[in-house]
Amino acid sequence: MNNKKQQLDCLEWIDEYLNDARFGLRGKILLEEVSPYQRITIFESILYGKGLLLDGCWMTTELQEKHYHECLVHPALTSAKEIKKILIIGGGDGGTARECLRYESLEHIDMVEIDGLVVELSQKHLPLIGGSAWNDHRLNIHIQDGINWVDKAATNSYDVVIVDGSDPTGPAQGLFNKQFFEQCSRILRPGGIFATQSESPEAFKQVHIAIIRTLREVFNFADPLYGSVPIYPSGWWSWSFASAKEPRYLNPLLHRVQEISAKCEVWSARWQKGAFEAIPAFIERELKA
Amino acid sequence: MNNKKQQLDCLEWIDEYLNDARFGLRGKILLEEVSPYQRITIFESILYGKGLLLDGCWMTTELQEKHYHECLVHPALTSAKEIKKILIIGGGDGGTARECLRYESLEHIDMVEIDGLVVELSQKHLPLIGGSAWNDHRLNIHIQDGINWVDKAATNSYDVVIVDGSDPTGPAQGLFNKQFFEQCSRILRPGGIFATQSESPEAFKQVHIAIIRTLREVFNFADPLYGSVPIYPSGWWSWSFASAKEPRYLNPLLHRVQEISAKCEVWSARWQKGAFEAIPAFIERELKA
Repeated sequence: MNNKKQQLDCLEWIDEYLNDARFGLRGKILLEEVSPYQRITIFESILYGKGLLLDGCWMTTELQEKHYHECLVHPALTSAKEIKKILIIGGGDGGTARECLRYESLEHIDMVEIDGLVVELSQKHLPLIGGSAWNDHRLNIHIQDGINWVDKAATNSYDVVIVDGSDPTGPAQGLFNKQFFEQCSRILRPGGIFATQSESPEAFKQVHIAIIRTLREVFNFADPLYGSVPIYPSGWWSWSFASAKEPRYLNPLLHRVQEISAKCEVWSARWQKGAFEAIPAFIERELKA
Repeated sequence: MNNKKQQLDCLEWIDEYLNDARFGLRGKILLEEVSPYQRITIFESILYGKGLLLDGCWMTTELQEKHYHECLVHPALTSAKEIKKILIIGGGDGGTARECLRYESLEHIDMVEIDGLVVELSQKHLPLIGGSAWNDHRLNIHIQDGINWVDKAATNSYDVVIVDGSDPTGPAQGLFNKQFFEQCSRILRPGGIFATQSESPEAFKQVHIAIIRTLREVFNFADPLYGSVPIYPSGWWSWSFASAKEPRYLNPLLHRVQEISAKCEVWSARWQKGAFEAIPAFIERELKA
């Protein structure tokens, strides 16, 4: 009894606050460290297992992360012409790399994360998220500024570029502007696909719309896809995909779908088709205006 | 300054708690009353305007309610064969009635709400939600038990039956079982459609699956549609639709779509098509098992 009481006494709520709304999980803080870029918190929640917060914002949790990572990765990787060489900007928790590495034809990932401490703490405390990715010889981790990496990368050098960054403030703020998207477009091979998380159509409506508009200025085709990430503001989330000659991301290749479907939690070819169509009227109207 | 400080001092957080997660809005409680069925709270939030909680659970807010009401009403009312006579079970805040009354060909709504105090307080404190519905001669409010009403209603008497109830505990617990669905099926006219909110695939996964399975036992066709209601647990929500001879709810009639689209916030024929497709893999798998 005493033991249980002691455990319960240690529990607390951690909430992310935005616009006079908050979302919280109950559990306990395992550690908190400050890197040159942000405050990093590792939290053990009762509902979703261990999780990561950056500057007080929920990033990922062990038992909920697939809702985010599958939706970012599979629309791009099932439909790009080739998927031999992939660039991930951000993604320090390892979940995006793990989902990419499920494809056998993938040969090489460059994962460029600005904050080495996020990678280190994720490897140590959130092993369920990165999983076997951390030991996969195809994964090459570079602790560097992603914008710089993209600027210097060779033209036509990646099959897919994935931006897995946090909100466009703090270290991620340069990952959503036209200049950055243009460089991403330049380094993509023909038939390549660009993918980025693109915020909530509800909690970050203006940023969400700006991302899609800017992508459409840079690429010939770009579309948002809508899903649900309960730990993010409003729970309603989006990812956006872009390509040059046709909206390739709308048409997953059957053999790749078959390779990954059985182990996906949210993503399926059917789910994806729906999630691209399910654009809310208020966003569709603004994009047409 | 003193005035402003005083106002800020009055603000508090109201959170809905479920499974060691919580979602809260900042604002102030306007009033709290206890009816024979539940505790009713009217809250003024900064983010979403005035809102209603029942037994501490968020039901609706003035500036966010369309995400819920449009998704419950329009898939049914754009596709039923006729929409002259409609039954709403629950719906005491008036939002469902208001969306139904936008169709000119609608002649008569019976709205059967068990808790008269919800209607009374919504009319008084949340006028934006019911809007002009409360004064529309086509709306007939009956403060009664909805299960009883359905049991006694004549066979083939409604074009659409909409269940707009709270979670299946408390006063709404009889609105999700086979016997109730059978009675709803009986009172629907040929070409009629049944609609119900069907909980979160994430926060209420087992209840969600049970609702769809039970609907499929009773009706020939039933399918869930997925959307987002940020004030509900997980933010990921569903509504389910059922019909007899064909899945009519999948095929909105063009003239009705044209009648309502311009003033919808979330719903569009395109959004609906996507929202029916966007079933997450983990739910699709369980439904097939």
